[in-house]
Amino acid sequence: MVSTHILSAYDEELKYLNRRISEMGGLAEQMCGDAVRALVNSDSALAQKVISDDVILDHAERDIQDKAIVTIAKRQPMAADLREIIGTLRIAADLERVGDLGKNTAKRVLAVQGTGVPRKLARGLEHLSELALVQLKDVLDVFANRSAEKAEIIRQRDEEIDAMYTSLFRELLTYMMEDPRNITTCTHLLFCAKNIERIGDHATNIAETIYYIATGAQPEGERPKDDTSNMLGSAGT
Amino acid sequence: MVSTHILSAYDEELKYLNRRISEMGGLAEQMCGDAVRALVNSDSALAQKVISDDVILDHAERDIQDKAIVTIAKRQPMAADLREIIGTLRIAADLERVGDLGKNTAKRVLAVQGTGVPRKLARGLEHLSELALVQLKDVLDVFANRSAEKAEIIRQRDEEIDAMYTSLFRELLTYMMEDPRNITTCTHLLFCAKNIERIGDHATNIAETIYYIATGAQPEGERPKDDTSNMLGSAGT
Repeated sequence: MVSTHILSAYDEELKYLNRRISEMGGLAEQMCGDAVRALVNSDSALAQKVISDDVILDHAERDIQDKAIVTIAKRQPMAADLREIIGTLRIAADLERVGDLGKNTAKRVLAVQGTGVPRKLARGLEHLSELALVQLKDVLDVFANRSAEKAEIIRQRDEEIDAMYTSLFRELLTYMMEDPRNITTCTHLLFCAKNIERIGDHATNIAETIYYIATGAQPEGERPKDDTSNMLGSAGT
Repeated sequence: MVSTHILSAYDEELKYLNRRISEMGGLAEQMCGDAVRALVNSDSALAQKVISDDVILDHAERDIQDKAIVTIAKRQPMAADLREIIGTLRIAADLERVGDLGKNTAKRVLAVQGTGVPRKLARGLEHLSELALVQLKDVLDVFANRSAEKAEIIRQRDEEIDAMYTSLFRELLTYMMEDPRNITTCTHLLFCAKNIERIGDHATNIAETIYYIATGAQPEGERPKDDTSNMLGSAGT
């Protein structure tokens, strides 16, 4: 009886950590979606909400870390269970960073408000953001199922986001070259696009962590983490 | 005798983790310094070295994670010791990201090679990089001493880096506006400057982790993590 009781209390603690990760994921997704909506609609009230929501994610990450340490100290789990808890800490850190990226995008809403975002660029940013948020949502679903194969599929999909980011990068440079008055706005949009691309990188990190939790190994092959815009010289743009 | 033996094996394991962190820190610092040198001197061989060194940091982070899990499973440490090991994992993750930032800067060396980096901008980047690398070096020294007060001092110093980054951001926009032929190069330099500013953020993260290891609490007060360039509208540049 006693050992069943202890086991079930331990299960409750693991469930608590998983639920907190899922809450963090939901909020991080919403913040990033709202930040892009605020940007393309010049909605400074929505931007302000994203900025103030970030503190919730920061607290959630600290809570997960504190609870994880208490769980490890009390339950003294063996390697596979430890991997799960350590993996949870890594995922919480990635989600906290995703929130920071949403917040940074939201902060740029005021900076571009005077000029507005050209329609074609707005569509590009929205599309990039949809792709990144699908990656984030899917990887959180995979976390719930702990599937190493599905984690690997998501990891490979990051290349699509990188390709779209590189194309948006080119387009933004073209806008700047056409009219120097676009430079300030387009520079902020470049950083927004980079923020969104980095959300995809964090989804990739989370996929790698899930693979590690499930198998105890790191996924093989070069990780498709960096975009290719950093290769574009003057001739290439 | 037996318990002394166990204690000393445990100490050896903690020392191993600390030594690995210090090695990672040294390599991350060197990569970031080399990346900026490669950028301002158009030294593509040095850039290539930085790019290929990154894999060493990736492996070191994985090694630290694997060893930390084995240490926790074998030694079943209590809360304060666990905090130290979990803190070590966080610091390893920050240093791995610093290496990524050095690598990203190095990749841009080829992109700007045709045009070269204007002397004044090169000086600005070098200065920003010196500040960020001093932060990184100092925070790694503080890690060796575990001083919460010194960690707090380093955390506050990040504002200086942010202010210098914002000033470089303005200067880069001015160059672009003066001559649209500068746009591609200056955009790459903007991302390089942002990479360097983010090295300062990671030093701040590490300072917060050291504070947490030493005290079990998070440092108080708003963390000075974001720069202010995202507030600059067209009128402000």
